[in-house]
Amino acid sequence: MKQMEQYNGSWQDTVFSDGSKLFLSKSNPKVGDEVEIKIRLSKDSPINRVFLRYLRNGERTIVPMNGKTRGIYDIYKTSIEINQREIRYHFILLTDSRTYFYNQGGLTECILNEDYDFKIISDFSNPEWTKDAVFYQIFVDRFCNGCEENDVKDNEYEEYGYHARKIPWGEKPGSYDEFGNLNFYGGDLEGVEQKIPYLKDLGINALYLNPIFQSPSNHKYDCEDYFNVDKHFGGNEALVSLSNKLHENNMKIMLDISINHTGITNKWVKDKRQYYYNKEDGSLECWVGVKTLPVLNYNCKELQDVIYRNEDCVLKHYLKKPYNLDGWRFDVGHTVAKMDATQMDKELWQDVRKSIKDTNDDAYIIAEHWTDCSEYLQGNMWDGTMNYIGFMRPVRRYLGEPDKYIRWVIEDLKMKTGSADIFMREIMAHYGRLPFQMQKLQFNLLGSHDIPRFHHSKYLMHDGKLNKDNIKASIIMLLTFIGVPCIYYGDEILIDGEDGNDQGCRYCMDWDSSHYDKEIHDLYKKMISLRKSEEVLKSGSFKFIKADERILSYARFDDKTAIIYINSQDDEYKKLTLSLDSIGQTEKVQTILGREDCCILDNNNLHVYINSNENILLKIALK
Amino acid sequence: MKQMEQYNGSWQDTVFSDGSKLFLSKSNPKVGDEVEIKIRLSKDSPINRVFLRYLRNGERTIVPMNGKTRGIYDIYKTSIEINQREIRYHFILLTDSRTYFYNQGGLTECILNEDYDFKIISDFSNPEWTKDAVFYQIFVDRFCNGCEENDVKDNEYEEYGYHARKIPWGEKPGSYDEFGNLNFYGGDLEGVEQKIPYLKDLGINALYLNPIFQSPSNHKYDCEDYFNVDKHFGGNEALVSLSNKLHENNMKIMLDISINHTGITNKWVKDKRQYYYNKEDGSLECWVGVKTLPVLNYNCKELQDVIYRNEDCVLKHYLKKPYNLDGWRFDVGHTVAKMDATQMDKELWQDVRKSIKDTNDDAYIIAEHWTDCSEYLQGNMWDGTMNYIGFMRPVRRYLGEPDKYIRWVIEDLKMKTGSADIFMREIMAHYGRLPFQMQKLQFNLLGSHDIPRFHHSKYLMHDGKLNKDNIKASIIMLLTFIGVPCIYYGDEILIDGEDGNDQGCRYCMDWDSSHYDKEIHDLYKKMISLRKSEEVLKSGSFKFIKADERILSYARFDDKTAIIYINSQDDEYKKLTLSLDSIGQTEKVQTILGREDCCILDNNNLHVYINSNENILLKIALK
Repeated sequence: MKQMEQYNGSWQDTVFSDGSKLFLSKSNPKVGDEVEIKIRLSKDSPINRVFLRYLRNGERTIVPMNGKTRGIYDIYKTSIEINQREIRYHFILLTDSRTYFYNQGGLTECILNEDYDFKIISDFSNPEWTKDAVFYQIFVDRFCNGCEENDVKDNEYEEYGYHARKIPWGEKPGSYDEFGNLNFYGGDLEGVEQKIPYLKDLGINALYLNPIFQSPSNHKYDCEDYFNVDKHFGGNEALVSLSNKLHENNMKIMLDISINHTGITNKWVKDKRQYYYNKEDGSLECWVGVKTLPVLNYNCKELQDVIYRNEDCVLKHYLKKPYNLDGWRFDVGHTVAKMDATQMDKELWQDVRKSIKDTNDDAYIIAEHWTDCSEYLQGNMWDGTMNYIGFMRPVRRYLGEPDKYIRWVIEDLKMKTGSADIFMREIMAHYGRLPFQMQKLQFNLLGSHDIPRFHHSKYLMHDGKLNKDNIKASIIMLLTFIGVPCIYYGDEILIDGEDGNDQGCRYCMDWDSSHYDKEIHDLYKKMISLRKSEEVLKSGSFKFIKADERILSYARFDDKTAIIYINSQDDEYKKLTLSLDSIGQTEKVQTILGREDCCILDNNNLHVYINSNENILLKIALK
Repeated sequence: MKQMEQYNGSWQDTVFSDGSKLFLSKSNPKVGDEVEIKIRLSKDSPINRVFLRYLRNGERTIVPMNGKTRGIYDIYKTSIEINQREIRYHFILLTDSRTYFYNQGGLTECILNEDYDFKIISDFSNPEWTKDAVFYQIFVDRFCNGCEENDVKDNEYEEYGYHARKIPWGEKPGSYDEFGNLNFYGGDLEGVEQKIPYLKDLGINALYLNPIFQSPSNHKYDCEDYFNVDKHFGGNEALVSLSNKLHENNMKIMLDISINHTGITNKWVKDKRQYYYNKEDGSLECWVGVKTLPVLNYNCKELQDVIYRNEDCVLKHYLKKPYNLDGWRFDVGHTVAKMDATQMDKELWQDVRKSIKDTNDDAYIIAEHWTDCSEYLQGNMWDGTMNYIGFMRPVRRYLGEPDKYIRWVIEDLKMKTGSADIFMREIMAHYGRLPFQMQKLQFNLLGSHDIPRFHHSKYLMHDGKLNKDNIKASIIMLLTFIGVPCIYYGDEILIDGEDGNDQGCRYCMDWDSSHYDKEIHDLYKKMISLRKSEEVLKSGSFKFIKADERILSYARFDDKTAIIYINSQDDEYKKLTLSLDSIGQTEKVQTILGREDCCILDNNNLHVYINSNENILLKIALK
């Protein structure tokens, strides 16, 4: 498939459409609505007719589009009626001698893989607030100890021969071998609440908390009781208080839950054996064989009711008063309701979505998934994924780190890094199959509790020195990309930690601001502020401008503004000329990040002078 | 996505695996089976480790493969347990400095689009007999009049102001404007039965009949009564007789049905109004607005029962004695059970499949679909599609004809033709998303009752002369491709007809053998015979060897034999060298079609001397 090709400065490169308001008259239409669809391309292109091709009740329908020249573009448009839940469309472009097809996979002369067609999901329950959201992920035990009285006591829990240990704040957590998952620092919801001013100062307006329900471990994915917040985190009252305080501050709260498995100490293990997969030898099926994590069996209708169907089910319980949860993050979303003969995940997620949206149609639904998961992201299951596949993995690889997700299994794996071309192909392979409505909802992140922090990667260290330019690159990308950005606690200060063990990314938050990496902290504040003030970063189009071997450039743009990011992974200083014809008719350029003289705009051509590993961020006014 | 790249003679080109017995120990395994999976590549490649990566209950699982050098190859293998209905896998290949991924999309350094992963469907009800089948499609009214007594009488039917007309055999059918669909020639099932010797002589062993159920038109897609064969075709007795006679001759029979709509004269239109979509004005929703074709509404449970669920439902009725049908072809498969708010096609097709396979698990299920339909071809809905998207459209385009399917709407569309590169990309985009088990079941065709015959295309005419070399190319491709070949009646004699109207591809069969194009008829016989005698054409691997701009070469191969096809659309005589390292270790070459001196085999390199539009077909013995 020649769909992801990159054309530099040719007419082909100017062909563009998406689901933004520049090209689609209603971003979340309803059945019965009429929508206007547009596509634009250079007026100097040889294209002289354009058709819209869509499926209506499965029948392909081809309608001619009306073209008009405006500035440097020919703009073609037509209107169609939204008659069904999902409309798929692509464009057919004709020259005097050739035929081209265009969809989210790009421009091609081949008959298309329609998975990459543009899609409109009608009657889609869109969590609008996520547009403005900048998330912050908190691993509660390690963030802030707001109440010492409720701290775990030494020996309070025992598991696999390990005994609970209360550790002084700031000490290194050590490896699993030392404490199991029973080393506790005392972080709690009271602590989170106390730090709201810090978070607001940073610019955060939404929290994602790792699990908080009662459980004997520090990570709490081994839930003992879904209906009670862990007493060491402050219990249900603390959650009510935190939720209220956040909402008073116009902040949102999303909780994390595993509906795939409970902890082995859950009372259901004794009382509700039918909720689990019982093996012939009397034991339970456990998640990847971990004996403390028995897997829930959704063939059991009663379990479905308890988790997601009844009015007082777990998922609805927290969406309602007094908790007023704004979203759910589902642990191990890739494996829920899959167990050999049982492969009922699609039905389950559709039901879960319906149940959640019936209770709070503004709720945001994301799930953990590390690999190709576009099938879940078509508007009827999850809103987003922890975007490892479509953001974190490509970004960290581009910026120098061989894929950690694969290195967990193949430790010494070598990999080509620093390739903007591979980066673009990986991004497009994922985003290209999502409706634009869903592209905007992907939960972008640079790391989480599940992966060593990027700034601890040995691949970012050269001669004992951290490649801070590439850390900065990752931060700029996080806050300019299409999707919802989330910062993992401590990344903003280059918190201590280590690669090489589970606990290495779960060090205690350091509240001594003299320890902060000021440069990084300032960059986060600046970029978060930019994200929140520039509408184009929230809802604008996304387009690659250049993705050569070692030079990357992409833009977010609408009809007034373009934000352009340029990065070099080349070893040498480079001069480039980027045509901005694919972005808009430019008026003037302003440097947000970068040397004052790094760019000259000349007649829609941008001359760029870029050093190795340099980051340039521009704001361009469009006519 | 750089997945479909073509590497010529490089180690990358030798990387290969598929679902054939060379690379997968069980072609249709059951849950609980262990299967061995292999991949091979040149022993001179820099790859030194290979891993199999698959999903087990959603969890990615990576296992090292054991490598062994055998001849010119390194062969890596490992075994896995089939634990669930669908297993998806790809390979991870390591050099000292790079990582590659390989699936049906090809070899790439990018994280994969897993839609192209290899897939194993377990407990798949595979119609084994299709492996040996060479189909022949018959439009019954135009094939042979076996019984003149049951012919339609003048004025027997009336529709849209047209009156039924009995036309003498061999006269041109004229256009729709002249007769509507009420011109009849008297062809019937008795006629088909009488021609079994002709069909056997040609090599045919399976028939696909256009609709035969009672209806007032010559095409019979406007069904009046699903439970009765049209009296003008000989009634139910004629079908019983034909089916018996075919089975006595080891031939199969597949019928065509529209379960999307009936004819307006169906008694259900009066008696069972609930089977249809009733509009507010009292009229019925009709297929693409054609007033004689009211659409069936599967929201009606009783209709589901009558069509596909009850023991005496339509679909089961003919699979049972005395009809013993071997397969169903579904008309307009792309639109069934889709009507605005109703989009229940996936559920319907899964139910239909289950119902059919419960009755005859050897039954073959195909459906009409002209565009991207890989979602229906994953083992739980259709077995195959009328392979317009993955065969006919790419083949006819490669051989010179701008896509007719799009030209129906955009009549004067120009298009790049003759590009082997586009051909390969289009083929791979479709086949690459199907399990190998399904690839073998695609219903390949060069034309049908729904499209002008290829040999009538004006694009095949040059200075008033037919480009017969390209017709031959299409025939060779049909009978060497992966999938089940079907010949549309009359193509084998270059039957008369015309481009430009519906009836142009429905001329009466010409039974005067002195009119046959002897060369084409002989080629069909030779190719059908080859198809049936060479196991490798039925179940071997499929691989492109070369797909440059205007030179195409692909192979079918197993461990003993390769059949290699080479075609040039270049204007000039060409000398090429093809590396056969990707196919096997060659021993000797034999020319099946082509000049005796067209090829020289030299140390696994094939030197080819090819003229413009020439077809070369080789059989190569492998060590």
